[in-house]
Amino acid sequence: MSLSNERKLEHQPAHLSDQEIFDAHEGGKLTIASSRPLRSVRDLSLAYTPGVARVCQEVQHTPAASLRLTGRGRTVAIISDGSAVLGLGNIGPLAALPVMEGKAQLFSAFADLNAVPVVLDVHDADSLVDTIKAMAPSFGAINLEDIAAPTCFEVERRLIEELDIPVMHDDQHGTAIVITAALHNACRLLNRDLTRLKVVISGAGAAGVACAKMLHEAGISDITVLDSRGIIHSGRDNLNPVKQDLLKITNPRGISGGVAEALRGADAFIGLSRGHVSEQELAGMAAEPILFSLANPDPEIAPELAYRYGAVVATGRSDLPNQINNVLAFPGIFHGALAAHATAITPEMKLAASRAIAEIAAERLDAEYLIPSPLDGRVAPAVSEAVRMAAARQNP
Amino acid sequence: MSLSNERKLEHQPAHLSDQEIFDAHEGGKLTIASSRPLRSVRDLSLAYTPGVARVCQEVQHTPAASLRLTGRGRTVAIISDGSAVLGLGNIGPLAALPVMEGKAQLFSAFADLNAVPVVLDVHDADSLVDTIKAMAPSFGAINLEDIAAPTCFEVERRLIEELDIPVMHDDQHGTAIVITAALHNACRLLNRDLTRLKVVISGAGAAGVACAKMLHEAGISDITVLDSRGIIHSGRDNLNPVKQDLLKITNPRGISGGVAEALRGADAFIGLSRGHVSEQELAGMAAEPILFSLANPDPEIAPELAYRYGAVVATGRSDLPNQINNVLAFPGIFHGALAAHATAITPEMKLAASRAIAEIAAERLDAEYLIPSPLDGRVAPAVSEAVRMAAARQNP
Repeated sequence: MSLSNERKLEHQPAHLSDQEIFDAHEGGKLTIASSRPLRSVRDLSLAYTPGVARVCQEVQHTPAASLRLTGRGRTVAIISDGSAVLGLGNIGPLAALPVMEGKAQLFSAFADLNAVPVVLDVHDADSLVDTIKAMAPSFGAINLEDIAAPTCFEVERRLIEELDIPVMHDDQHGTAIVITAALHNACRLLNRDLTRLKVVISGAGAAGVACAKMLHEAGISDITVLDSRGIIHSGRDNLNPVKQDLLKITNPRGISGGVAEALRGADAFIGLSRGHVSEQELAGMAAEPILFSLANPDPEIAPELAYRYGAVVATGRSDLPNQINNVLAFPGIFHGALAAHATAITPEMKLAASRAIAEIAAERLDAEYLIPSPLDGRVAPAVSEAVRMAAARQNP
Repeated sequence: MSLSNERKLEHQPAHLSDQEIFDAHEGGKLTIASSRPLRSVRDLSLAYTPGVARVCQEVQHTPAASLRLTGRGRTVAIISDGSAVLGLGNIGPLAALPVMEGKAQLFSAFADLNAVPVVLDVHDADSLVDTIKAMAPSFGAINLEDIAAPTCFEVERRLIEELDIPVMHDDQHGTAIVITAALHNACRLLNRDLTRLKVVISGAGAAGVACAKMLHEAGISDITVLDSRGIIHSGRDNLNPVKQDLLKITNPRGISGGVAEALRGADAFIGLSRGHVSEQELAGMAAEPILFSLANPDPEIAPELAYRYGAVVATGRSDLPNQINNVLAFPGIFHGALAAHATAITPEMKLAASRAIAEIAAERLDAEYLIPSPLDGRVAPAVSEAVRMAAARQNP
């Protein structure tokens, strides 16, 4: 019953006036406060001088104690350079800050973690890596956010190599994890074999690349990826190194062309771009296709077409069923990684998170309920526990 | 009555067991939470997508709006590289974090500001400046903390020049502001003329240098500064540029030697070092000297000697009267500077803060009450208002 109420809520269209939105942002959306009373000299002496000196010495001699004796063990930095924010593009760090604050609210509300919004006014990979490494001792984990491809790939890779705390670019992996969960459940509902799907991914940015990799790890062998110039294939001479790498795990039939060629006979479409799919292109897909049309606010496939052709449909919109929302993933993933004192977020931990999300919806699947609601309070604890256990299995 | 209760509290000796201190730090000392409920899809849509995009666009087109529509306008970063922490020295960023968290608690408790602890694993001036500039769009103001001299001077100077938000190294100016307030009130109580005092400052680190500058600005012409090698005088060949600069405003009589020579005939001693003053050296001072012996936990002058010789005595200890505690200054200073949308914290704003602190105690001065208690809730609002008005006078 309560879940059904949540779904009703979820499908309410959001009519938001500028005034309401601005009012909801006035003075910022976060409060940073002492978690203990500071009313007496004794309180002050415990929290600050002279008492704190004893804690400093303890951490100096036993660095791991900082995970327990400071907030680090439950603090995630949300770091962006503002170069690829929502659908707005490269709007810069100052304009990106409201998004990072919103995300910090979600970390607190869904996983009771402290999250610190940090926007950076440097944009090349070297400077981003240097700056983030310099501030890393402040945090227990790092959520990279809204950094443009392909810089985001190098920044994430180098930080994972060079830091001993979990680092994850959520636009890549959070999205891929939720999509993989939804695709798993679509196959369950439709009695299909996930590994035999022909999947088309439109978009070779952060989310598209990570999604292709995760679906490949999940066992799908026929994946075709499109960027703004069409299908990524070995005959193209305009592929950056990340797209060249994608060729190793995608396009096994060696096809070329555009959306029409990619979709011909395909079982699933995953839209992570600003592209557009016509009715004719849709009609070329295999029967009863799976349509995840995630561009926001304007899906690649017009909703009326998607619902007419698709066996199941997911979008990025809060006013339609099956919203692919990263909030299903990141709070629990970071909570679980921190709980495990993990030094990285591994592919196994991501797959565990994806399975945990899928399992919660699996108990009563239907075409409008492939994944839980973003407001379902069961998700983050289940994801956290699955991630913690996956981490423990890898570092027993 | 209530104030007298506060003073009683203040003078309670702090007997803190390691266990109590560690318990008070377990899990960290800060909570970062959403300042608005996140219970419905509508709440999510306002705080995060799609609503937040409208706020991003507003800030992109009108950058100043970020002071209102994000938390920046009330957020202070507390930034340290851990190179000069309390009396513990260069203990590194991780071990410094408990102090920064404690300071963030104080910002919240006394001025209702959000403060973010940031510890940096870079230590030269260039790297510190680059890193802090990169992250500056995240914050409304920057409190530099526990950075060793002389690096702290260059870092502060360059950040003030290169950023358009208030930057203050609290170990320098917070300390100087409270000392200046206490010295003003000592002169009121003892009917002395501040400007005619012969003042000896022991210590040429961050606090000592800033204190010498501020007392000079307050009109004191006879200031002698000692470092670990003795009196700073023009005959020395081992002075760094900061100490050479100090010669322009100190040691007008051109004296040399050590503590004994400096104190001979002096009216006031301000100890900001780990030095030691003997009874014989004390006895050489002018009659009824002012003794601010601020090293913590072991004052330069043993308390029993200080109270025997001094007309008034201040220390850095919470269990003795007249504790020189920066918390009297920094919450109100940053609150006032942010309220004024000031782009810097000027000498006039610092003097206004110092006067505001002194005025609160002036109404019932005695030898044990030169400055308000760190817990006096009147101080931060009064300092904030004085600083805000001083800023407004400079940028009307």
